[in-house]
Amino acid sequence: MSVADVSPLRLGIAGLGTVGIGVVKIVQAHADLLAVRAGRPVVITAVSARDRSKNRDADLSAYAWETDPVALAVREDVDVLVELIGGHEGAARSAIEAALSAGKDVVTANKALLAHHGQTLAEMAESLGRVIRFEAAVAGGIPVIKTLTEGLAGNRIRRVMGVMNGTCNYILTRMESAGLPYDTVFEEARALGYLEADPTLDVGGIDAGHKLAILAAIAFGTRVSFDDVVLEGIGRVSIDDIRRAGDMGYRIKLLGVAQMTGRGLEQRMMPCLVPAASPLGQLEGGTNMVVLEGDAVGQVVLRGAGAGEGPTASAVMGDVLDLARGLRIPTFGQPAESLAYAQPAAVSAPVAYYIRLELLDKPGALAKVATVLGEAGISISRLRQYGHADHSAPVLIVTHKTTPDAVDFALSAFAATGVVMGDAVAMRIEEV
Amino acid sequence: MSVADVSPLRLGIAGLGTVGIGVVKIVQAHADLLAVRAGRPVVITAVSARDRSKNRDADLSAYAWETDPVALAVREDVDVLVELIGGHEGAARSAIEAALSAGKDVVTANKALLAHHGQTLAEMAESLGRVIRFEAAVAGGIPVIKTLTEGLAGNRIRRVMGVMNGTCNYILTRMESAGLPYDTVFEEARALGYLEADPTLDVGGIDAGHKLAILAAIAFGTRVSFDDVVLEGIGRVSIDDIRRAGDMGYRIKLLGVAQMTGRGLEQRMMPCLVPAASPLGQLEGGTNMVVLEGDAVGQVVLRGAGAGEGPTASAVMGDVLDLARGLRIPTFGQPAESLAYAQPAAVSAPVAYYIRLELLDKPGALAKVATVLGEAGISISRLRQYGHADHSAPVLIVTHKTTPDAVDFALSAFAATGVVMGDAVAMRIEEV
Repeated sequence: MSVADVSPLRLGIAGLGTVGIGVVKIVQAHADLLAVRAGRPVVITAVSARDRSKNRDADLSAYAWETDPVALAVREDVDVLVELIGGHEGAARSAIEAALSAGKDVVTANKALLAHHGQTLAEMAESLGRVIRFEAAVAGGIPVIKTLTEGLAGNRIRRVMGVMNGTCNYILTRMESAGLPYDTVFEEARALGYLEADPTLDVGGIDAGHKLAILAAIAFGTRVSFDDVVLEGIGRVSIDDIRRAGDMGYRIKLLGVAQMTGRGLEQRMMPCLVPAASPLGQLEGGTNMVVLEGDAVGQVVLRGAGAGEGPTASAVMGDVLDLARGLRIPTFGQPAESLAYAQPAAVSAPVAYYIRLELLDKPGALAKVATVLGEAGISISRLRQYGHADHSAPVLIVTHKTTPDAVDFALSAFAATGVVMGDAVAMRIEEV
Repeated sequence: MSVADVSPLRLGIAGLGTVGIGVVKIVQAHADLLAVRAGRPVVITAVSARDRSKNRDADLSAYAWETDPVALAVREDVDVLVELIGGHEGAARSAIEAALSAGKDVVTANKALLAHHGQTLAEMAESLGRVIRFEAAVAGGIPVIKTLTEGLAGNRIRRVMGVMNGTCNYILTRMESAGLPYDTVFEEARALGYLEADPTLDVGGIDAGHKLAILAAIAFGTRVSFDDVVLEGIGRVSIDDIRRAGDMGYRIKLLGVAQMTGRGLEQRMMPCLVPAASPLGQLEGGTNMVVLEGDAVGQVVLRGAGAGEGPTASAVMGDVLDLARGLRIPTFGQPAESLAYAQPAAVSAPVAYYIRLELLDKPGALAKVATVLGEAGISISRLRQYGHADHSAPVLIVTHKTTPDAVDFALSAFAATGVVMGDAVAMRIEEV
């Protein structure tokens, strides 16, 4: 074994929030374990955060301190920048670019940065012979980037799906279990610190959309195209829909799907119904699940904690160990310049839909709704009209497979019937 | 990029059964995809099997043919031996040793070989600077070796569990769904070609035990010790137990568990009850599931096809791509000589048990059984006595947590009560 092999791998940790401190704890607690696994010591030489005086749950006294993450990134005694600042511009991006230029490799948990600038950063890293790894950016502790990029590298990937925002899943499962409306649970989640500073990142599906766009790039060998993700958050999911979907044997999840179709790359992140008894349907709270489908392997399903100090730090350390062991592969699993521009495809594959509407108590009302569906070319699989004391009654419809266009047509036409109160709700049913 | 980087990686495939042909198909169908992902072409130069004249589902005309896998292993134009012969002695072992000695890396799907000779082969490979990879040896298409060795390398692993023999799981789920006894379904499985030539490898839990022993070595940094796996097959699982367990909300699975305890390394592979609604309980047919628990990541669950041409070939190709990309880590994730000898620990952690017995229809019979349990220090969580037309009645007991010793004591004592017909059955209940 040469001397180069046993020199320590020296980390500079930029960002000392929950995840940064989690990484520090692992490096400190498992020094021997990491050294024997990596074949060399893994050490932290320097750290960086804005506020040095803040009380943190780890002893940082042995590490050099930089207030400026860019200064940290270019230090002589740092081999790998571990970027845990977050945000798709500003300090995080500057530090990563500085690190690459200074000949350092990068490990990051920054999904927003990769979703917005992944291509540019990957090209920069590869032109400089540097590596960027980002397991922690997608699905927390689940090693999904590694599974997709390496474990399933012999497959043409057909489809990638996932529940990848624990906060949304927490809100949806809590609404159901406590019977509380969205707004109430949203405020609970905020009080518990589960929401990002800008909560639309979570509940608007943006964070999950970033993750989906990154997975799609690796899966299909295409340039990250977050702007093409069809995004819909969970804000319009009502407690009524959660209850009614439950009656029909479904649960509502914020589910992402990316697949390469004959028309181009379809990427969507939206609330969907899934069978309550399915693995996705059973997913509780902050747990994430990712489904990968390859032409040789079939379906592989991964489940684990999607966030939190330990799980996210575990993912960061997996990347660190890979670098310590000398694994050097392109950011998205193939050279950045070989990644294709993907034609975005509209979401048009036919699926079954759940439709909920309030029917006015008039003779022939249900017949009018059925006529609209018939005109839209939608056939009904199951229909349930609920008893009512009021002047309107909830009607639930599970359709046979139909297209989003047909459903849009029906939703518009309902308004003209004069028997449907307010707006009807429609959601896709995904049989995973 | 240097010339060395773009030279092809040349495979020699030893063994042209289902998996070997699956590998050939992937290399042929995905040549471009593999080259862009690996950064170099991946090609097959030579193949080997006993019978050249056999009709195979792939065009092998472009490859050199060797009847002797050792001759294949040492060919000048082979960089990586892909060993798909199987068996823990004989041709497979000779070919791998010859390949390592000749400076080749090895990819194998051979769980028996690694369970029996993993330490010797790993030491040999490492002394020669060679790499052995074996993703396909455990849980088919699920990249569990990679996840454990690399993705979770920042964790101290606490426990590894898994349903890892698809044939056993097929038999158990088929017994339940068709209401058929073990012997009938066993013969069905044999007729369908699901069983190994020596079926005790499957139904005796040996194959699954091999896999567990390999996972334990990686998880705990210990030398593979298959002989210390407490093994029990599915042969004694009766249709009665499957039905009764179902009544109580459980399903029976051949579940492996490995954990490092204060007393040493516990490894067991035996039929257990798991909650019917749990992910393990819902596992159908040939699907495998592995549960990995790390101190930082918590629980990660992986599910996928445990066998078959495509899934197993996918795992082989993951390893091939790793080698093509230059990943070189020790066989068990740390140097073979650093692996500890593990003290085997008896299975003694307390769990809840399922006990089924036939109670004779005599006054005070149930009281006698309850007295035995009390004397054994076992407290009852749930008890159900079934109606009976005969002179005996089935009694099901779910205990609170208790030790295997206490259960063994009770099982022996039941015989002396004179009210229990035949042998009582006891199985662990695992809450995963």
